[in-house]
Amino acid sequence: MKDVAARAGVGLKTVSRVVNGEPGVTPDTERRVQEAIDALGFRRNDSARVLRKGRTSSIGLVLEDLADPFYGPLSRAVEEVSRAHGSLLINGSSAEDPDREQELALALCARRVDGLVIIPAGDDHRYLEPEIRAGVATVFVDRPAGRIDADVVLSDSFGGARDGVAHLIAHGHRRIGFIGDMPRIHTAAERLRGYRAAMEDAGIPVEETWMSLGVTDPERVRRAAEEMLSGPAPVTAVFAGNNRVTVTVVRVIAEHARRVALVGFDDFELADLLQPGITVISQDPAGMGRTAAERLFQQLDGSLVVPERIELPTRLIARGSGELPPAD
Amino acid sequence: MKDVAARAGVGLKTVSRVVNGEPGVTPDTERRVQEAIDALGFRRNDSARVLRKGRTSSIGLVLEDLADPFYGPLSRAVEEVSRAHGSLLINGSSAEDPDREQELALALCARRVDGLVIIPAGDDHRYLEPEIRAGVATVFVDRPAGRIDADVVLSDSFGGARDGVAHLIAHGHRRIGFIGDMPRIHTAAERLRGYRAAMEDAGIPVEETWMSLGVTDPERVRRAAEEMLSGPAPVTAVFAGNNRVTVTVVRVIAEHARRVALVGFDDFELADLLQPGITVISQDPAGMGRTAAERLFQQLDGSLVVPERIELPTRLIARGSGELPPAD
Repeated sequence: MKDVAARAGVGLKTVSRVVNGEPGVTPDTERRVQEAIDALGFRRNDSARVLRKGRTSSIGLVLEDLADPFYGPLSRAVEEVSRAHGSLLINGSSAEDPDREQELALALCARRVDGLVIIPAGDDHRYLEPEIRAGVATVFVDRPAGRIDADVVLSDSFGGARDGVAHLIAHGHRRIGFIGDMPRIHTAAERLRGYRAAMEDAGIPVEETWMSLGVTDPERVRRAAEEMLSGPAPVTAVFAGNNRVTVTVVRVIAEHARRVALVGFDDFELADLLQPGITVISQDPAGMGRTAAERLFQQLDGSLVVPERIELPTRLIARGSGELPPAD
Repeated sequence: MKDVAARAGVGLKTVSRVVNGEPGVTPDTERRVQEAIDALGFRRNDSARVLRKGRTSSIGLVLEDLADPFYGPLSRAVEEVSRAHGSLLINGSSAEDPDREQELALALCARRVDGLVIIPAGDDHRYLEPEIRAGVATVFVDRPAGRIDADVVLSDSFGGARDGVAHLIAHGHRRIGFIGDMPRIHTAAERLRGYRAAMEDAGIPVEETWMSLGVTDPERVRRAAEEMLSGPAPVTAVFAGNNRVTVTVVRVIAEHARRVALVGFDDFELADLLQPGITVISQDPAGMGRTAAERLFQQLDGSLVVPERIELPTRLIARGSGELPPAD
């Protein structure tokens, strides 16, 4: 700014007025300052601007995994709402690491976002309390906040899983496997609870070997599926806890001689074009993103004060794989 | 900071020293300041910090579409390299809008990222010149920069498309359709050029009705595919210009009575499990992201000065759909 002032032959305050669009500058002076800016390649520094003003018209989104297609429509919906409010969306990914979630959320706050939409990896969000007190709006989505009172938008993971497993039971299955994400993840725990509830409702005792929770990388899921499908009393159906699990189970079943029924939590692209089509419990990721972002802007305009927990319903889509009868 | 200073009974400068880990503060004073900070929930403000220091240990990624699965592994690779360099990645999406790309890139610069990896939507990047002069590292990926000299990492779109179309010709096709993205997008134009080259190499005159370029939303692609597949002399094979096009063409062909061959640019999840499996020209999105991010950090450590254009090879994966003979 000093260089600009010197080149334009004006004071620092005048340069500041021009840059910030404040009154009290003659058109001629403004032109000279603008020419000096163009000549010197002056960069406006938001760091300085933010120190003075309140809002930055930007919001942050903390994702869990940049490569999970479930988060694509969710992110895009947050972005669309953000854009409709004249706000810029900046994202980052925790890669399912609680420390990284915290690092990222605080880094976005330090860059002065007005609010955060968070798909949490961790289960203790007290680190956000100073930010929230300082006026940062926060909405959690897909999984609840831990140890703080915050807005949260979820799918009905428990009810959806219970419906999916009951569907398999209705088609004659009793030996049903469950393969899910790590048990510390809220959605994984809720879906396992739904599986157990459906089995209990039908009076079917669950064997320990029918349940496998862990990371959703293909190797782990493949091993789990192959174990359940082998041995003297294999499962006749699998309930897959999310789309990452489902696509691997589809692969294992395709290589398998015996018929195996499958219902997966989450819809996914091309699920209807596989043979058989894959029966899924469909969530509404775009609706979750939209609802979360709208609540964020309602917090920012002061019309929301009491945190709420919103649960969106799921929907069973029958396409063939979940209607197969047991092989034996 | 004033409140912290008042509560701790010290001057502003002392608070600043404690917060920034500078010397010249007694352990007792440091303890009092820390207690005041804890009591008041003082938030460190990176905006102020950045004004003083050089690097921020953060890089930005400007994506094209948050929901296109092609960008999932690319983003994740950029993030992994960024993390390995102790840097935080923040993303945003242009939604294929050149104005938004510029707004986002400059907003990330204003938030003082050390560098930018950009999947450009626009074709004039002179707006970045002041940033680059000010030391912001930039690497373009998937599409080249426009009107500035910059590092760029691409796939061989021309060669890949030419190979894919030649593959269809080798299987007996002469009436081959091309459905691609908007012609102003570099990759779309290059793939069309590859299509034309393969047809010309085989001495096949191309009819105008065999080529359709435009947005890749399912409605437009479906219309284009249905037009090419109808009429008195329909195409017997389709070359799809990217994965968004391919998944819709797969759907149209599945509804079609006549056999239609298909080769798609980009591999995609479950392509091998469809019946027939989808023959694709596979790119290496993770390799592109990794290469781009590594060049960015080489620019930052000063070991790279001359911008280069790096082109990664593509690979044809035959799975059935591209080896079908013509229906007539």
